Amino acid sequence: MSSRIREGELLDEYLEQFVPHLSVDCVVFGFHGADLKLLLLKWKGQNVWALPGGYVGHRQSLDRAAQETIQQRTGIHRLHLRQFHAFGEIGRNELCALGACKRIFTGVRRDQWLFRRVVSIGYYALVDFQEVRPTPDPHSDSCAWYPLDEHPPLAFDHDRIVARALDALRAALEVPGAGASLLPERFTMPELQRLHEAVLGRPLDRRNFQKRMLDRGGIQRLNERRQGGAHRAPFLYRFTGGREVADF
Amino acid sequence: MSSRIREGELLDEYLEQFVPHLSVDCVVFGFHGADLKLLLLKWKGQNVWALPGGYVGHRQSLDRAAQETIQQRTGIHRLHLRQFHAFGEIGRNELCALGACKRIFTGVRRDQWLFRRVVSIGYYALVDFQEVRPTPDPHSDSCAWYPLDEHPPLAFDHDRIVARALDALRAALEVPGAGASLLPERFTMPELQRLHEAVLGRPLDRRNFQKRMLDRGGIQRLNERRQGGAHRAPFLYRFTGGREVADF
Repeated sequence: MSSRIREGELLDEYLEQFVPHLSVDCVVFGFHGADLKLLLLKWKGQNVWALPGGYVGHRQSLDRAAQETIQQRTGIHRLHLRQFHAFGEIGRNELCALGACKRIFTGVRRDQWLFRRVVSIGYYALVDFQEVRPTPDPHSDSCAWYPLDEHPPLAFDHDRIVARALDALRAALEVPGAGASLLPERFTMPELQRLHEAVLGRPLDRRNFQKRMLDRGGIQRLNERRQGGAHRAPFLYRFTGGREVADF
Repeated sequence: MSSRIREGELLDEYLEQFVPHLSVDCVVFGFHGADLKLLLLKWKGQNVWALPGGYVGHRQSLDRAAQETIQQRTGIHRLHLRQFHAFGEIGRNELCALGACKRIFTGVRRDQWLFRRVVSIGYYALVDFQEVRPTPDPHSDSCAWYPLDEHPPLAFDHDRIVARALDALRAALEVPGAGASLLPERFTMPELQRLHEAVLGRPLDRRNFQKRMLDRGGIQRLNERRQGGAHRAPFLYRFTGGREVADF
Protein backbone atom coordinates (compact mmCIF):
# COMPACT_ATOMS: atom_id res chain seq x y z
CA MET A 1 0.00 0.00 0.00
CA SER A 2 1.49 3.34 -1.01
CA SER A 3 1.81 5.98 1.68
CA ARG A 4 0.59 8.50 -0.89
CA ILE A 5 -2.96 7.52 -0.08
CA ARG A 6 -2.42 8.69 3.45
CA GLU A 7 -1.36 12.05 2.09
CA GLY A 8 -4.43 12.34 -0.08
CA GLU A 9 -2.69 12.30 -3.43
CA LEU A 10 -2.95 10.49 -6.69
CA LEU A 11 -5.82 8.23 -5.89
CA ASP A 12 -7.22 7.27 -9.22
CA GLU A 13 -3.94 5.85 -10.47
CA TYR A 14 -3.47 3.98 -7.23
CA LEU A 15 -6.96 2.54 -7.34
CA GLU A 16 -6.56 1.50 -10.95
CA GLN A 17 -3.54 -0.66 -10.11
CA PHE A 18 -5.72 -2.93 -8.03
CA VAL A 19 -8.75 -5.09 -8.62
CA PRO A 20 -11.56 -3.03 -7.10
CA HIS A 21 -13.51 -4.35 -4.09
CA LEU A 22 -10.99 -7.11 -3.45
CA SER A 23 -8.35 -7.64 -0.78
CA VAL A 24 -6.42 -10.35 1.02
CA ASP A 25 -6.22 -10.58 4.81
CA CYS A 26 -3.50 -12.64 6.40
CA VAL A 27 -3.69 -14.42 9.73
CA VAL A 28 -0.08 -15.06 10.74
CA PHE A 29 0.13 -17.50 13.64
CA GLY A 30 3.49 -17.49 15.39
CA PHE A 31 4.71 -20.56 17.20
CA HIS A 32 7.87 -21.15 19.19
CA GLY A 33 8.27 -23.71 21.91
CA ALA A 34 4.76 -23.73 23.31
CA ASP A 35 3.00 -20.41 22.62
CA LEU A 36 0.73 -19.38 19.78
CA LYS A 37 0.70 -15.68 18.90
CA LEU A 38 -0.98 -13.46 16.33
CA LEU A 39 0.70 -10.78 14.18
CA LEU A 40 -1.23 -7.49 14.24
CA LEU A 41 -0.86 -3.97 12.93
CA LYS A 42 -1.77 -0.93 15.00
CA TRP A 43 -3.03 1.90 12.80
CA LYS A 44 -1.19 5.20 12.88
CA GLY A 45 -2.19 7.40 15.82
CA GLN A 46 -5.26 5.29 16.63
CA ASN A 47 -6.26 2.48 18.97
CA VAL A 48 -7.24 0.29 16.05
CA TRP A 49 -5.68 -3.11 15.45
CA ALA A 50 -6.08 -5.15 12.30
CA LEU A 51 -4.66 -8.08 10.37
CA PRO A 52 -1.94 -7.51 7.81
CA GLY A 53 -3.62 -7.22 4.43
CA GLY A 54 -3.40 -5.72 1.01
CA TYR A 55 -5.08 -5.23 -2.31
CA VAL A 56 -4.67 -7.46 -5.34
CA GLY A 57 -2.96 -6.14 -8.45
CA HIS A 58 -4.57 -6.72 -11.83
CA ARG A 59 -1.59 -8.87 -12.85
CA GLN A 60 -1.26 -10.64 -9.52
CA SER A 61 -2.83 -13.92 -8.41
CA LEU A 62 -4.61 -14.07 -5.07
CA ASP A 63 -1.90 -16.36 -3.70
CA ARG A 64 0.84 -13.98 -4.81
CA ALA A 65 -0.91 -10.98 -3.21
CA ALA A 66 -1.10 -12.82 0.12
CA GLN A 67 2.50 -14.05 -0.19
CA GLU A 68 3.82 -10.52 -0.79
CA THR A 69 1.74 -9.06 2.03
CA ILE A 70 3.14 -11.51 4.55
CA GLN A 71 6.68 -11.25 3.20
CA GLN A 72 6.58 -7.48 3.65
CA ARG A 73 5.27 -7.73 7.23
CA THR A 74 7.49 -10.62 8.38
CA GLY A 75 10.64 -10.65 6.25
CA ILE A 76 10.04 -14.37 5.66
CA HIS A 77 10.28 -15.43 2.04
CA ARG A 78 9.59 -19.16 2.17
CA LEU A 79 6.10 -19.34 3.55
CA HIS A 80 3.48 -22.02 3.87
CA LEU A 81 0.35 -20.03 3.22
CA ARG A 82 -3.10 -21.50 3.00
CA GLN A 83 -6.21 -19.82 1.68
CA PHE A 84 -9.12 -20.74 3.95
CA HIS A 85 -12.19 -18.56 3.28
CA ALA A 86 -13.53 -15.58 1.35
CA PHE A 87 -15.31 -12.97 3.47
CA GLY A 88 -18.02 -11.16 1.59
CA GLU A 89 -20.83 -10.12 3.92
CA ILE A 90 -22.56 -6.83 3.23
CA GLY A 91 -21.18 -4.21 5.62
CA ARG A 92 -18.19 -6.33 6.64
CA ASN A 93 -15.84 -3.37 6.27
CA GLU A 94 -18.26 -0.56 7.01
CA LEU A 95 -16.02 0.75 9.77
CA CYS A 96 -14.03 2.01 6.83
CA ALA A 97 -16.92 4.18 5.70
CA LEU A 98 -17.84 5.31 9.19
CA GLY A 99 -14.87 5.46 11.45
CA ALA A 100 -11.18 5.64 11.94
CA CYS A 101 -10.43 4.56 8.42
CA LYS A 102 -11.60 7.89 6.99
CA ARG A 103 -8.74 9.62 8.71
CA ILE A 104 -6.32 7.33 6.92
CA PHE A 105 -7.82 7.51 3.46
CA THR A 106 -8.29 11.27 3.69
CA GLY A 107 -7.96 11.91 -0.01
CA VAL A 108 -10.31 9.21 -1.20
CA ARG A 109 -13.59 10.31 -2.71
CA ARG A 110 -16.50 8.70 -0.86
CA ASP A 111 -17.81 7.07 -4.04
CA GLN A 112 -14.59 5.13 -4.50
CA TRP A 113 -14.67 1.36 -4.06
CA LEU A 114 -12.49 1.66 -0.95
CA PHE A 115 -15.57 2.93 0.87
CA ARG A 116 -17.88 0.22 -0.38
CA ARG A 117 -17.95 -3.47 0.48
CA VAL A 118 -14.59 -5.11 -0.15
CA VAL A 119 -14.50 -8.91 -0.46
CA SER A 120 -11.48 -10.24 1.36
CA ILE A 121 -9.79 -13.56 0.77
CA GLY A 122 -8.42 -15.00 4.03
CA TYR A 123 -5.03 -16.71 4.17
CA TYR A 124 -3.22 -18.11 7.16
CA ALA A 125 0.38 -19.03 7.81
CA LEU A 126 2.04 -20.70 10.77
CA VAL A 127 5.60 -19.48 11.28
CA ASP A 128 8.32 -19.68 13.90
CA PHE A 129 7.90 -16.27 15.54
CA GLN A 130 11.58 -16.07 16.36
CA GLU A 131 12.35 -15.93 12.65
CA VAL A 132 10.04 -12.97 11.97
CA ARG A 133 11.05 -9.32 11.78
CA PRO A 134 7.65 -7.62 12.25
CA THR A 135 7.50 -4.59 9.96
CA PRO A 136 4.62 -2.07 9.96
CA ASP A 137 3.04 -0.93 6.70
CA PRO A 138 2.77 2.78 5.80
CA HIS A 139 -0.59 3.10 7.59
CA SER A 140 0.60 1.56 10.85
CA ASP A 141 2.57 2.64 13.88
CA SER A 142 3.51 -0.88 14.79
CA CYS A 143 3.48 -4.49 13.73
CA ALA A 144 3.80 -6.87 16.66
CA TRP A 145 2.94 -10.25 18.14
CA TYR A 146 0.00 -10.57 20.54
CA PRO A 147 -1.05 -13.65 22.54
CA LEU A 148 -3.76 -15.43 20.59
CA ASP A 149 -6.07 -15.46 23.61
CA GLU A 150 -5.48 -11.89 24.75
CA HIS A 151 -5.17 -9.63 21.76
CA PRO A 152 -7.11 -6.36 21.44
CA PRO A 153 -10.44 -6.44 19.55
CA LEU A 154 -9.85 -6.11 15.82
CA ALA A 155 -11.24 -3.79 13.15
CA PHE A 156 -13.90 -4.82 10.61
CA ASP A 157 -14.73 -8.54 10.80
CA HIS A 158 -11.12 -9.46 11.55
CA ASP A 159 -11.95 -11.24 14.81
CA ARG A 160 -14.21 -13.52 12.82
CA ILE A 161 -11.47 -14.03 10.24
CA VAL A 162 -9.06 -15.09 13.00
CA ALA A 163 -11.61 -17.52 14.46
CA ARG A 164 -12.15 -19.18 11.09
CA ALA A 165 -8.41 -19.33 10.42
CA LEU A 166 -7.91 -21.11 13.72
CA ASP A 167 -10.63 -23.62 12.81
CA ALA A 168 -8.87 -24.26 9.51
CA LEU A 169 -5.47 -24.61 11.19
CA ARG A 170 -6.89 -27.13 13.66
CA ALA A 171 -8.46 -29.14 10.84
CA ALA A 172 -5.12 -29.09 8.99
CA LEU A 173 -3.44 -30.70 12.03
CA GLU A 174 -5.40 -33.85 11.24
CA VAL A 175 -3.23 -34.34 8.16
CA PRO A 176 0.03 -36.19 8.92
CA GLY A 177 3.00 -33.96 8.20
CA ALA A 178 1.16 -30.75 9.08
CA GLY A 179 3.53 -28.31 10.69
CA ALA A 180 6.58 -30.04 9.26
CA SER A 181 8.15 -26.67 8.48
CA LEU A 182 7.98 -25.71 12.18
CA LEU A 183 9.74 -28.79 13.46
CA PRO A 184 13.31 -29.96 12.90
CA GLU A 185 13.60 -32.58 10.13
CA ARG A 186 14.01 -35.17 12.89
CA PHE A 187 11.83 -34.34 15.87
CA THR A 188 10.76 -35.91 19.13
CA MET A 189 7.24 -36.87 20.13
CA PRO A 190 7.18 -34.15 22.86
CA GLU A 191 8.08 -31.54 20.20
CA LEU A 192 5.23 -32.69 17.97
CA GLN A 193 2.88 -32.73 20.95
CA ARG A 194 3.77 -29.14 21.92
CA LEU A 195 2.88 -27.98 18.41
CA HIS A 196 -0.49 -29.72 18.59
CA GLU A 197 -1.16 -28.38 22.09
CA ALA A 198 -0.35 -24.81 21.04
CA VAL A 199 -2.71 -24.96 18.07
CA LEU A 200 -5.49 -26.73 19.96
CA GLY A 201 -5.03 -24.51 23.02
CA ARG A 202 -5.24 -27.37 25.51
CA PRO A 203 -2.96 -30.03 27.01
CA LEU A 204 -3.05 -33.50 25.47
CA ASP A 205 -2.49 -36.83 27.16
CA ARG A 206 1.04 -37.99 26.30
CA ARG A 207 0.31 -41.67 25.69
CA ASN A 208 -2.94 -41.16 23.75
CA PHE A 209 -1.24 -38.54 21.61
CA GLN A 210 1.68 -40.83 20.77
CA LYS A 211 -0.65 -43.71 19.94
CA ARG A 212 -2.86 -41.56 17.71
CA MET A 213 0.11 -40.11 15.82
CA LEU A 214 1.57 -43.57 15.17
CA ASP A 215 -1.79 -45.14 14.27
CA ARG A 216 -2.62 -42.60 11.61
CA GLY A 217 0.66 -43.16 9.76
CA GLY A 218 2.82 -40.73 7.83
CA ILE A 219 5.43 -40.74 10.59
CA GLN A 220 8.45 -43.00 11.10
CA ARG A 221 10.42 -43.71 14.25
CA LEU A 222 14.16 -43.65 13.63
CA ASN A 223 16.75 -45.77 15.43
CA GLU A 224 18.19 -42.65 17.03
CA ARG A 225 17.52 -40.69 20.16
CA ARG A 226 17.76 -36.96 20.82
CA GLN A 227 20.91 -36.55 22.95
CA GLY A 228 21.77 -34.00 25.59
CA GLY A 229 18.55 -33.57 27.55
CA ALA A 230 18.22 -33.96 31.31
CA HIS A 231 15.64 -36.74 30.89
CA ARG A 232 15.95 -40.08 29.23
CA ALA A 233 16.81 -39.33 25.60
CA PRO A 234 13.60 -39.51 23.51
CA PHE A 235 13.40 -41.26 20.15
CA LEU A 236 13.55 -39.20 16.97
CA TYR A 237 10.83 -39.34 14.30
CA ARG A 238 10.43 -38.00 10.78
CA PHE A 239 7.48 -37.42 8.48
CA THR A 240 7.49 -40.03 5.71
CA GLY A 241 5.63 -37.84 3.20
CA GLY A 242 8.51 -35.36 3.02
CA ARG A 243 8.61 -31.99 4.72
CA GLU A 244 6.74 -30.06 2.05
CA VAL A 245 3.97 -32.40 1.06
CA ALA A 246 1.37 -32.00 3.74
CA ASP A 247 2.35 -28.79 5.41
CA PHE A 248 -0.20 -26.21 6.53
CA MET B 1 -27.54 -12.70 -15.81
CA SER B 2 -29.63 -10.50 -18.07
CA SER B 3 -30.14 -11.70 -21.62
CA ARG B 4 -29.60 -8.08 -22.71
CA ILE B 5 -25.89 -8.66 -22.60
CA ARG B 6 -26.27 -11.32 -25.24
CA GLU B 7 -28.04 -8.78 -27.41
CA GLY B 8 -25.29 -6.25 -26.93
CA GLU B 9 -27.35 -3.61 -25.17
CA LEU B 10 -27.11 -1.52 -22.07
CA LEU B 11 -23.83 -2.79 -20.78
CA ASP B 12 -22.69 -0.08 -18.48
CA GLU B 13 -25.79 -0.20 -16.33
CA TYR B 14 -25.61 -3.96 -16.16
CA LEU B 15 -21.95 -3.92 -15.23
CA GLU B 16 -22.54 -1.31 -12.54
CA GLN B 17 -25.04 -3.54 -10.74
CA PHE B 18 -22.31 -6.04 -9.97
CA VAL B 19 -19.04 -5.98 -8.11
CA PRO B 20 -16.48 -5.89 -10.92
CA HIS B 21 -14.03 -8.79 -11.38
CA LEU B 22 -15.96 -11.02 -9.01
CA SER B 23 -18.19 -14.05 -9.53
CA VAL B 24 -19.42 -17.19 -7.83
CA ASP B 25 -19.19 -20.64 -9.40
CA CYS B 26 -21.33 -23.43 -8.07
CA VAL B 27 -20.51 -27.12 -8.13
CA VAL B 28 -23.82 -28.90 -7.67
CA PHE B 29 -23.30 -32.57 -6.89
CA GLY B 30 -26.42 -34.66 -7.37
CA PHE B 31 -26.92 -37.86 -5.40
CA HIS B 32 -29.68 -40.41 -5.52
CA GLY B 33 -29.35 -44.02 -4.49
CA ALA B 34 -25.77 -44.66 -5.52
CA ASP B 35 -24.71 -42.25 -8.28
CA LEU B 36 -22.95 -38.90 -8.08
CA LYS B 37 -23.65 -36.45 -10.90
CA LEU B 38 -22.66 -32.91 -11.82
CA LEU B 39 -24.99 -30.11 -12.96
CA LEU B 40 -23.64 -28.34 -16.06
CA LEU B 41 -24.76 -25.65 -18.48
CA LYS B 42 -24.17 -25.91 -22.22
CA TRP B 43 -23.65 -22.50 -23.77
CA LYS B 44 -26.03 -21.38 -26.49
CA GLY B 45 -25.12 -22.77 -29.89
CA GLN B 46 -21.66 -23.92 -28.78
CA ASN B 47 -19.96 -27.07 -27.54
CA VAL B 48 -18.91 -25.34 -24.36
CA TRP B 49 -19.91 -26.65 -20.93
CA ALA B 50 -19.50 -24.75 -17.69
CA LEU B 51 -20.58 -24.63 -14.07
CA PRO B 52 -23.61 -22.60 -13.06
CA GLY B 53 -22.38 -19.23 -11.89
CA GLY B 54 -23.18 -15.60 -11.56
CA TYR B 55 -21.95 -12.18 -10.59
CA VAL B 56 -22.28 -10.62 -7.16
CA GLY B 57 -24.51 -7.58 -6.65
CA HIS B 58 -23.17 -4.62 -4.71
CA ARG B 59 -25.82 -5.21 -2.03
CA GLN B 60 -25.50 -8.98 -2.04
CA SER B 61 -23.30 -11.18 0.15
CA LEU B 62 -21.19 -13.87 -1.50
CA ASP B 63 -23.32 -16.57 0.14
CA ARG B 64 -26.51 -14.97 -1.15
CA ALA B 65 -25.15 -14.72 -4.69
CA ALA B 66 -24.31 -18.43 -4.68
CA GLN B 67 -27.65 -19.35 -3.10
CA GLU B 68 -29.60 -17.44 -5.75
CA THR B 69 -27.53 -18.88 -8.59
CA ILE B 70 -28.24 -22.45 -7.50
CA GLN B 71 -31.89 -21.74 -6.73
CA GLN B 72 -32.38 -20.41 -10.25
CA ARG B 73 -30.71 -23.43 -11.85
CA THR B 74 -32.27 -26.13 -9.64
CA GLY B 75 -35.56 -24.81 -8.27
CA ILE B 76 -34.39 -25.87 -4.79
CA HIS B 77 -34.79 -23.22 -2.12
CA ARG B 78 -33.46 -24.91 1.01
CA LEU B 79 -29.87 -25.62 0.14
CA HIS B 80 -26.80 -26.65 2.07
CA LEU B 81 -24.15 -24.66 0.30
CA ARG B 82 -20.57 -24.55 1.34
CA GLN B 83 -17.93 -22.11 0.16
CA PHE B 84 -14.70 -24.02 -0.42
CA HIS B 85 -12.13 -21.90 -2.31
CA ALA B 86 -11.53 -18.62 -4.14
CA PHE B 87 -10.01 -19.00 -7.61
CA GLY B 88 -7.85 -16.07 -8.58
CA GLU B 89 -5.06 -17.15 -10.88
CA ILE B 90 -3.98 -14.76 -13.61
CA GLY B 91 -5.56 -15.89 -16.88
CA ARG B 92 -8.03 -18.25 -15.20
CA ASN B 93 -10.88 -17.00 -17.39
CA GLU B 94 -8.89 -15.98 -20.44
CA LEU B 95 -11.01 -18.17 -22.68
CA CYS B 96 -13.46 -15.35 -22.17
CA ALA B 97 -11.09 -12.92 -23.83
CA LEU B 98 -10.04 -15.31 -26.60
CA GLY B 99 -12.78 -17.69 -27.48
CA ALA B 100 -16.36 -18.66 -27.44
CA CYS B 101 -17.26 -16.19 -24.77
CA LYS B 102 -16.83 -13.27 -27.15
CA ARG B 103 -19.76 -14.46 -29.17
CA ILE B 104 -21.93 -14.32 -26.09
CA PHE B 105 -20.83 -10.96 -24.77
CA THR B 106 -20.98 -9.39 -28.20
CA GLY B 107 -21.78 -5.92 -26.99
CA VAL B 108 -19.14 -5.70 -24.29
CA ARG B 109 -16.25 -3.34 -24.86
CA ARG B 110 -12.94 -5.17 -24.62
CA ASP B 111 -11.72 -2.91 -21.82
CA GLN B 112 -14.63 -3.92 -19.59
CA TRP B 113 -13.88 -6.02 -16.52
CA LEU B 114 -15.74 -8.97 -18.03
CA PHE B 115 -12.74 -9.46 -20.32
CA ARG B 116 -10.14 -9.20 -17.59
CA ARG B 117 -9.37 -11.62 -14.76
CA VAL B 118 -12.45 -12.39 -12.70
CA VAL B 119 -11.92 -13.86 -9.22
CA SER B 120 -14.46 -16.57 -8.61
CA ILE B 121 -15.61 -17.86 -5.24
CA GLY B 122 -16.36 -21.58 -5.39
CA TYR B 123 -19.37 -23.08 -3.62
CA TYR B 124 -20.60 -26.63 -3.63
CA ALA B 125 -23.90 -28.23 -2.77
CA LEU B 126 -24.92 -31.85 -2.53
CA VAL B 127 -28.56 -32.35 -3.47
CA ASP B 128 -30.94 -35.20 -4.24
CA PHE B 129 -30.97 -35.01 -8.04
CA GLN B 130 -34.53 -36.28 -8.20
CA GLU B 131 -35.68 -33.07 -6.51
CA VAL B 132 -33.99 -30.75 -9.02
CA ARG B 133 -35.63 -29.11 -12.02
CA PRO B 134 -32.54 -28.17 -14.09
CA THR B 135 -33.16 -24.76 -15.67
CA PRO B 136 -30.77 -23.12 -18.17
CA ASP B 137 -29.74 -19.48 -17.78
CA PRO B 138 -30.22 -16.96 -20.63
CA HIS B 139 -26.80 -17.82 -22.11
CA SER B 140 -27.34 -21.55 -22.16
CA ASP B 141 -29.16 -24.05 -24.35
CA SER B 142 -29.39 -26.61 -21.61
CA CYS B 143 -28.83 -27.33 -17.95
CA ALA B 144 -28.43 -31.02 -17.23
CA TRP B 145 -26.85 -33.72 -15.07
CA TYR B 146 -23.68 -35.44 -16.23
CA PRO B 147 -21.92 -38.41 -14.60
CA LEU B 148 -19.14 -37.05 -12.39
CA ASP B 149 -16.56 -39.31 -14.05
CA GLU B 150 -17.65 -38.81 -17.65
CA HIS B 151 -18.63 -35.21 -18.17
CA PRO B 152 -17.33 -33.11 -21.09
CA PRO B 153 -14.25 -30.92 -20.45
CA LEU B 154 -15.28 -27.60 -18.92
CA ALA B 155 -14.58 -23.98 -19.82
CA PHE B 156 -12.06 -21.76 -18.01
CA ASP B 157 -10.61 -23.48 -14.90
CA HIS B 158 -13.91 -25.17 -14.10
CA ASP B 159 -12.43 -28.69 -14.18
CA ARG B 160 -10.03 -27.58 -11.47
CA ILE B 161 -12.90 -26.04 -9.51
CA VAL B 162 -14.79 -29.35 -9.65
CA ALA B 163 -11.72 -31.30 -8.48
CA ARG B 164 -11.25 -29.01 -5.49
CA ALA B 165 -14.96 -29.14 -4.64
CA LEU B 166 -14.79 -32.92 -4.62
CA ASP B 167 -11.78 -32.79 -2.26
CA ALA B 168 -13.74 -30.49 0.04
CA LEU B 169 -16.82 -32.70 -0.09
CA ARG B 170 -14.73 -35.76 0.79
CA ALA B 171 -13.14 -33.94 3.72
CA ALA B 172 -16.61 -32.88 4.91
CA LEU B 173 -17.66 -36.55 5.04
CA GLU B 174 -15.26 -36.96 7.96
CA VAL B 175 -17.62 -34.85 10.07
CA PRO B 176 -20.41 -36.91 11.67
CA GLY B 177 -23.79 -35.77 10.40
CA ALA B 178 -22.44 -34.77 6.98
CA GLY B 179 -25.02 -35.47 4.33
CA ALA B 180 -27.86 -35.54 6.84
CA SER B 181 -30.08 -33.61 4.43
CA LEU B 182 -29.70 -36.35 1.82
CA LEU B 183 -30.74 -39.19 4.10
CA PRO B 184 -34.06 -39.85 5.76
CA GLU B 185 -34.18 -38.66 9.38
CA ARG B 186 -33.82 -42.31 10.38
CA PHE B 187 -31.55 -44.18 8.02
CA THR B 188 -29.89 -47.56 7.72
CA MET B 189 -26.18 -48.26 7.71
CA PRO B 190 -26.31 -49.40 4.03
CA GLU B 191 -27.92 -46.05 3.10
CA LEU B 192 -25.16 -44.14 4.88
CA GLN B 193 -22.55 -46.36 3.24
CA ARG B 194 -23.96 -45.73 -0.27
CA LEU B 195 -23.64 -41.97 0.29
CA HIS B 196 -20.01 -42.35 1.37
CA GLU B 197 -19.25 -44.68 -1.53
CA ALA B 198 -20.79 -42.30 -4.07
CA VAL B 199 -18.75 -39.35 -2.77
CA LEU B 200 -15.52 -41.33 -2.41
CA GLY B 201 -16.04 -43.07 -5.76
CA ARG B 202 -15.09 -46.50 -4.46
CA PRO B 203 -16.68 -49.41 -2.61
CA LEU B 204 -16.14 -49.64 1.14
CA ASP B 205 -15.93 -52.71 3.31
CA ARG B 206 -19.26 -53.09 5.09
CA ARG B 207 -17.97 -54.11 8.51
CA ASN B 208 -15.08 -51.62 8.64
CA PHE B 209 -17.42 -48.86 7.56
CA GLN B 210 -19.95 -49.68 10.27
CA LYS B 211 -17.26 -49.85 12.95
CA ARG B 212 -15.71 -46.54 11.90
CA MET B 213 -19.06 -44.73 11.83
CA LEU B 214 -19.95 -46.01 15.31
CA ASP B 215 -16.47 -45.34 16.76
CA ARG B 216 -16.40 -41.71 15.71
CA GLY B 217 -19.69 -40.93 17.45
CA GLY B 218 -22.43 -38.50 16.46
CA ILE B 219 -24.69 -41.37 15.44
CA GLN B 220 -27.21 -43.34 17.49
CA ARG B 221 -28.70 -46.79 16.84
CA LEU B 222 -32.43 -46.85 17.47
CA ASN B 223 -34.41 -49.82 18.74
CA GLU B 224 -36.19 -50.05 15.41
CA ARG B 225 -35.56 -51.77 12.13
CA ARG B 226 -36.40 -50.73 8.58
CA GLN B 227 -39.33 -52.93 7.56
CA GLY B 228 -40.35 -54.22 4.17
CA GLY B 229 -37.06 -55.13 2.49
CA ALA B 230 -36.27 -58.51 1.02
CA HIS B 231 -33.29 -59.00 3.33
CA ARG B 232 -33.17 -59.15 7.09
CA ALA B 233 -34.54 -55.80 8.27
CA PRO B 234 -31.58 -53.49 9.09
CA PHE B 235 -31.43 -51.30 12.20
CA LEU B 236 -32.26 -47.64 11.93
CA TYR B 237 -29.85 -44.89 13.03
CA ARG B 238 -30.05 -41.16 13.48
CA PHE B 239 -27.49 -38.37 13.77
CA THR B 240 -27.33 -37.13 17.35
CA GLY B 241 -26.14 -33.60 16.43
CA GLY B 242 -29.43 -32.80 14.67
CA ARG B 243 -29.95 -32.80 10.92
CA GLU B 244 -28.76 -29.26 10.28
CA VAL B 245 -25.73 -28.98 12.51
CA ALA B 246 -22.99 -30.68 10.59
CA ASP B 247 -24.33 -30.85 7.10
CA PHE B 248 -22.17 -30.22 4.06
